[in-house]
This record gives sequence, structure tokens and C-alpha cells, in this order.
Amino acid sequence: VTEGFDSEGKDKEQLPDLEYLFHPQSIAIVGASANPRTMGFGNLILGSMLECEFKGKLYPVHHHAKEIMGLRAYPSIKDIPDGVDYVISCIPAPQTLELIKDCIAKRVKATHIFTAGFSEIGEKGRELERQVVNLARQGGVRIIGPNCMGIYCPSTGLAFEPIFGKESGWVGYLSQSGGHSMELTQNVLSRGIRFSKVISYGNAADLNEADFLEYFTQDSETRIIAVYIEGVKEPQKFFKVFTKAAQAKPVIVFKGGQTEAGLRAVASHTGALAVSELVWDAFCRQAGVVQAHSLDELSDLVVTFSIFKPFKGNRVGIIGVGGGAGVQTADMCSRAGLIVPHFSPQVRQELRKFTPEAGTSVHNPVDNIVPFGSTSTFFKSISVIAASGEVDILLIHIMLAYGVVRRQGEDPIKQIIKASQTFDIPVAVVLHGSIAPDESGLAFKLQQMCAEARLPVYCSVENAARAISKFIQYHQVWRDRKLPEE
Amino acid sequence: VTEGFDSEGKDKEQLPDLEYLFHPQSIAIVGASANPRTMGFGNLILGSMLECEFKGKLYPVHHHAKEIMGLRAYPSIKDIPDGVDYVISCIPAPQTLELIKDCIAKRVKATHIFTAGFSEIGEKGRELERQVVNLARQGGVRIIGPNCMGIYCPSTGLAFEPIFGKESGWVGYLSQSGGHSMELTQNVLSRGIRFSKVISYGNAADLNEADFLEYFTQDSETRIIAVYIEGVKEPQKFFKVFTKAAQAKPVIVFKGGQTEAGLRAVASHTGALAVSELVWDAFCRQAGVVQAHSLDELSDLVVTFSIFKPFKGNRVGIIGVGGGAGVQTADMCSRAGLIVPHFSPQVRQELRKFTPEAGTSVHNPVDNIVPFGSTSTFFKSISVIAASGEVDILLIHIMLAYGVVRRQGEDPIKQIIKASQTFDIPVAVVLHGSIAPDESGLAFKLQQMCAEARLPVYCSVENAARAISKFIQYHQVWRDRKLPEE
Repeated sequence: VTEGFDSEGKDKEQLPDLEYLFHPQSIAIVGASANPRTMGFGNLILGSMLECEFKGKLYPVHHHAKEIMGLRAYPSIKDIPDGVDYVISCIPAPQTLELIKDCIAKRVKATHIFTAGFSEIGEKGRELERQVVNLARQGGVRIIGPNCMGIYCPSTGLAFEPIFGKESGWVGYLSQSGGHSMELTQNVLSRGIRFSKVISYGNAADLNEADFLEYFTQDSETRIIAVYIEGVKEPQKFFKVFTKAAQAKPVIVFKGGQTEAGLRAVASHTGALAVSELVWDAFCRQAGVVQAHSLDELSDLVVTFSIFKPFKGNRVGIIGVGGGAGVQTADMCSRAGLIVPHFSPQVRQELRKFTPEAGTSVHNPVDNIVPFGSTSTFFKSISVIAASGEVDILLIHIMLAYGVVRRQGEDPIKQIIKASQTFDIPVAVVLHGSIAPDESGLAFKLQQMCAEARLPVYCSVENAARAISKFIQYHQVWRDRKLPEE
Repeated sequence: VTEGFDSEGKDKEQLPDLEYLFHPQSIAIVGASANPRTMGFGNLILGSMLECEFKGKLYPVHHHAKEIMGLRAYPSIKDIPDGVDYVISCIPAPQTLELIKDCIAKRVKATHIFTAGFSEIGEKGRELERQVVNLARQGGVRIIGPNCMGIYCPSTGLAFEPIFGKESGWVGYLSQSGGHSMELTQNVLSRGIRFSKVISYGNAADLNEADFLEYFTQDSETRIIAVYIEGVKEPQKFFKVFTKAAQAKPVIVFKGGQTEAGLRAVASHTGALAVSELVWDAFCRQAGVVQAHSLDELSDLVVTFSIFKPFKGNRVGIIGVGGGAGVQTADMCSRAGLIVPHFSPQVRQELRKFTPEAGTSVHNPVDNIVPFGSTSTFFKSISVIAASGEVDILLIHIMLAYGVVRRQGEDPIKQIIKASQTFDIPVAVVLHGSIAPDESGLAFKLQQMCAEARLPVYCSVENAARAISKFIQYHQVWRDRKLPEE
């Protein structure tokens, strides 16, 4: 399938090397609006590339405008004086065939078709999609999409949302849905996670989930693979690639279309073919893939897998604000399969030294952070528990808007960060509860402080416990399992 | 147990009438600090009463200060020249017996003991608690607590958090945990719900959960009862009262201590006696009580039960931003037991009239709200679906930070509110996804707009679907069940 391309891969016998997709020297954006009042996706993408300082050349294409967003525009791709590696199409679907002809003439390597109106709308669109793909393949142009957001690659400045930023990380995220590609990315960016590449691939008419998964498996910049998928184009190839990917690095997957109603929605969203839920479950278990059951859970797992190193065991120590919240945290941890052990008399004695008797608990969960008390209790408590070796991870729960946060501002988080940097124990932070409108700035600040200190943040103890438990199970499974001989 | 009291109840043969607890003419707060640098709970509560414009007299009690927070202070309760109905104690536990003697001498009706350090700390505290209760009962003083936040009653200005406000509603909330009393209250206040009374009752040494539940059952201001409970003081009485309460109005309960670790946490939190999870489940089902499994779920259920009237059926129509989000919403609704029906060709034709073909769906879930398109699509879509009679409730999902909200501000919510006020169909709104820090103000504004328009708002489609499904099941159970003869 790599025929007609200059492969930059080291080993031409290997699976297709899509590295060139992420390093275009020049991009033409076809379909940006010249009118600031009718800005559309083309303008969003142009603005994103400018914001993320795309390192190559950008050519807006517009039938009559001379300039768009400060860049010289051309009436067609063929009129661009230099070579064009990558084309982004935001023009109506029926005009795509003509565009592909121009792309072939211009020796374009890949075209990202943002435009919808292909196989997801039924037979008419399916036929058009077939024609576009056939023409492109004959002419040596690979297609991303149609019906998708395309690629975000911070290291080269390829981007589709201006606020994603220029910083690279090591999560590779493959999303069949454009909305989910934006939602998860923003969610975990604000929790300190950065991406190697995000790929929103929509209808997968040419390049499909198996191709991209194969790429992430080989990509040395990608250490964790997150996937949102609605259906599988080539089941046999996909399951083979999926299994290989899971053997190479953690693969975390959320599949849309888990019910009959969901599958119907998939059909009109990306036109993907259904995979039975039972088959999917069995396959994920066999491949050692981690399954998420909502986009929020996928986000929590990405954060957990990105930040933590494997724990020695599954014993959790709980510290936090509020006795009721402590009870709930203990319940949620137990239900998620974690152990909330008794502390030894020694640990309780140590904690008691700086914990007043009334309204507190030095048992696990520890409840010794009082809204009007000293925030250094956090530091001291973490110190004692970390030194004890009686737990493998600390979970700290803090109620926003009330109690500690409201009265003590940033101090509790500063204490937790200082302790996590001083003592050798993994620390997870839950910032839960509603934010009063006038305190939202502080709540974001606290999350940002944790993110910068590489502490994973969750918005509920239930979510935190579930993600941490799946992380532990993953490492248990892979430790117990022999990797196949290569 | 009402011996020694002037009952204000109409029928003295009935269960204890605690109405007087909520209408004190005068309150003494014992233990507020005179030093602004060492403000504690006493000051918080004084400030709350002032903020909520408590209608009676407030007397700070302090051993030497002449004035606290602008109010004249007295060295002891006995020095207060007028009568005192209600005392709030924030002084250390060992001083409580002396205080109760003063309360008896002053003919105080009830004392709320905020202070912890009683039965929850073990045998020493249990003995002190017994002495306090025995003394108070002999002297005709009822006790709320110890180890709790006490009462919030907006109609009289009794309060423990300044920002809860003066507006009354019809949710009665009983919470054994002080933290949970604050967290749920703030959570649902910001979603437009108001309370008749909130009672945080802690160790339940004298007045216990059965007494308060009985009160809420009789209270005509309370139409929905929400409960967070960790244990039961008098099981036989409680289960009888609980059953009666559920026959009178919707009762929604979240029980802390669902696991061995959670129960251990309960023991050192409120010292409550455990109830086996199996017994509890069976009892709730039999009594027709709605169970929540987290505080967030309890909040979602309070919002749902407060705003919606019973639906005719369980068919959901889904409209929103993003195809992937539509798939997830359909999956979550189906999994929660709701029906996501096919729309008839007529409905699809009507929707198609204003829905572009590409990148959309006029099936259920409807995906026709485009980030750069017209927001009037919301209004038109709701109009068509409401008129069809093909669904019983509309669920609208909107991704924050991106798409519609980011580009179109308040317009989508305005359209939804206008439609919900024009057409006869219940509408639920999900505002999901992360908020970019600079957009948090807008996100709160949108939630507030929904709250003011009496639209329930949820932060995930999973939470919305689950709460709506439990609401439908509740009305199904109670419609099918004969109420007992009185």
C-alpha cells in the first residue's frame, strides 16, 4: 500500500511508514473563507497552524481572494508556485474529485478531507467516497478522512485547534470522532498531559484505524496509545495490528456503539461497520488492551498511564478533607478492587502526634485536615504514610468550594506537591465537588499546579479509583504474561 | 421523647413535632473567636446567620470579648438578659456538660453541638456523649449532633454557610456528614434547586435520623427528601419511619459504608452502627426508596426529582453537538434502560428541511448542530420532535470549551430555553467536557441560565441517563403500587 511514496522508513519490507504525514514541508488549505464574518473550519485550521507555529509553508486556496488571514491565497493548488506535500480540503463533497485531480497533478502526498457528506450519508455518499479513493490511490495520494479533524502534531505545528499548543508529549491518540478528538485532548491537556500526535480519521476511506495504529506502534515518540473507535474497516488486519500494538505499549480503547441505539448512531456518524460487543470484549481481554467505557474514563486512564510508574501492589492510603468524603473514597476504592489496609499502631501513633483528637481519624482513610487548621498536616501525614511502606499509593481527596480550599487557597496543594517531591510514594489528587462561580479561577489554578507537578488529578474519587485499579490490573496482566517471541 | 417540651404540633398524639427547631427566636453561639486571625466554625456560623438575615436575636458567648463580628458578646449564656431558644456549641467537648447545665438553667429548647470528640473517638467520647445526652434529656434540652453542621433553614435565616442564601425551596436534605451537607447543597443550589431545610446531624446522640425523617415526612414545606446516612440508631423505628416517608413523598438515599473499608471509615467518622449492604438494598427496594451510589448521583437525582413531572414513557430524543457525543449518549441512554426510538420518516423529513446533508444526522440521536452554523437549529429541532409525540423527553448534549459554545456563546442555550418554554416537552441539558480556563465564566453562565429556566443540567450523559431512568422507574413502581390504607 505504500506504492508511489517516498518512504522515510528504515525498513521498506515493514508495514507502511506514515511518518511523512506528520512532516509536510508545505500545506494548502482549500476552502478557508475570505470573509471574517463567515469563518469556518478552514479558517480555524489556518489559525491553529499559525498559533502552533507550523514550520513549513501555508497556502490558502480560494477562488478569488488574494489574501486570507494575512497569507497570500491562490485560486487553485495548481497555481501555487512551489511543491505541496499536504492538502486540507474544506470544500463541499461534490467538488472533491476535481480537487484530487489537482492533487495528483501537483504530486501531493496526502489529502486530509475535513468535509463530510460521504459514506456516512448513505449510498450516494458511499459512491462518491469510492470514486475519490480510487482516483487518489491511482494517483498516489493518500486520504485522511473524509469527515474528520485530521492531524495535530505539536512538534511540527500541524494542528486543528489553536489552543492545543506547541508542546509535545508521548501520548498518541487516534479518534474516529472529531468531537471526541477535541474533547479528550483538551481534557487531558489541562491535566498536564501532552501528545506525540492526535489523529482524527473519520470515515477511514483510505488510511484506516489499522494503518494509524500500526504507525503508533512503530512511532518512538508514542509511548501510550489511546483510541476512540466506532467500527473496523478490515477486521482481520485490525485485530492483528491491535494485538501487536498492545504487545509494544499500553493501548487504551473506548468503543462507541455498545448498544443497538449506539450502533445506529455510528452508522450515520462515520458509517463504520459494527463489531459485536461480545466479540469486542473478548478480543480486548485477549489482546491485553485496556477498555474504557466513556470518554471521561478514557481521559482518566490516559492521565493515569501517562503519569504513574507501575506500583508494587494495590494498597491505597487515603487522606483528605471530610469524614463523609473519606467514607465514600474508601467505598469507591474497595469497589474498584483496591485494598484500603488498616494502618499499624505505629503509623496511627505517628499521625496522632500532630492530629487533634476530636473530629479526626488516624485510621485509613485519614481524616485530619480541618478547614480552619494548619495545611502542614497534609505534608506531615504524607511523610508518615510514605515512610511506613504500608501502602503502595496515596489518594488525596479535596472538596472544592468549601472547607480547605475556600479557606486556605493554594496552601493545601502546595503542601501535597512538596510532599510528593520529598517522599517516594505515588500520589493521586481528587478535586471534587461543585465550584462556586467566584472560585472557578482558584479551582483551575489548583488543577494546573498539580498538572505542572506531574500529579494526576481526577474530578471524583470513583473515577480515580477505577482508573488506578485498571492501571494496576494492566501491569498485573502484562507481568504475568509472556511476551511473544519476535 | 417529647416530654418537657412545649409542642407546637397540632396533634400531641402524633410523632414528635420538631417544628420549633427551625424557628428559634434567639440563638446563642458559644465559642466564636474574638480574634479575626483565628476565626473558626463559630464565626462562620455567625457570619452565615448575618448573611442569611436570621430573623431572631443573635448572642455570641465569649469568656472575655465584649463584641464579636459587630454583635454584643456575653461571658455566658446565663448572662444574656433575654430568653434563649437555641444554642450552638463550638467549644471543646469536655466543656459541654457545663454548657448543658447552663442551657437547662436558661430553659433552652435545643442545642446544636458542632464540636467533635464524642462517640466517634472511642470509649472515652462515648461516655461523655452519654452523660451529655442524659443530662440534656433530664433538663428538657434536645441535642442536634454532636459532630455536625446543624441546620440550614432559609425561611428563618438559620444557616451554617454564608453563600447558601435566603431563598427557600422544597427539598429537605438530611445528612449525617457535615462535608456532604455542604457539598450536595452547593452542587444543587448552582443548578437551581432550593431547600426547605438542610439538617447535618452527625453522631445522632439524641435526635436521630428517624426523628428528622419523621419531621420531613410531616413537613408541608418539604416535597422531596434526600438523605445521606452512615448508620442507623434505632433500626426498628427507623425502618418504620423510612417506609412511611417513602409513602408520603419521594425519598432518595445515599448510604456511606458500602464496603468493609467504608464501614471502618464510618466507625471513626460518626461512630454509626453498620447495616449490612444486603439488608439495606432489600429494605430500600421494599420501601420504594430511590438509592444513589455516590454523592454526585444523589445530587443528580435531587435535581431530576425537583424539576421534572412524571413522564408518559421512557422514550428519549437526543439532540446535540458532535457525532461521537451522540453515539455515546445513545449508548448511555440504552444502558440506563431508556429507549432511543427510531424517528418516523415524517420527523426525519421535517428535520431535513433545515439540516444540511453533510456531517449531520436526522436520525435519533440527531446531529445537526454545527459549530459554525445557525443556533436556531436547536429551536427548530426541538419544535419538530416535540410536535411528533414520538419521544417522552429530550436530552440535549453540548460540549463545553469547543464547538458550539466556544464559537456561539450563550446563543445555543437561549434557543434551548426558548424552545423548552414554547413546546410541551421535558428537556434535560448536559454540559460536558473540560472547560478551558478562560471560558469558565461562560460555562457557569450557561449552567445558571438553565437553572433559572428550570432546565435540569448534568455534567455527563452517563449521569443524566442514569438519573432520568431512576426517576422513570420510581414513578413506575409507585404507579403500580397501591398506597397502604391509612
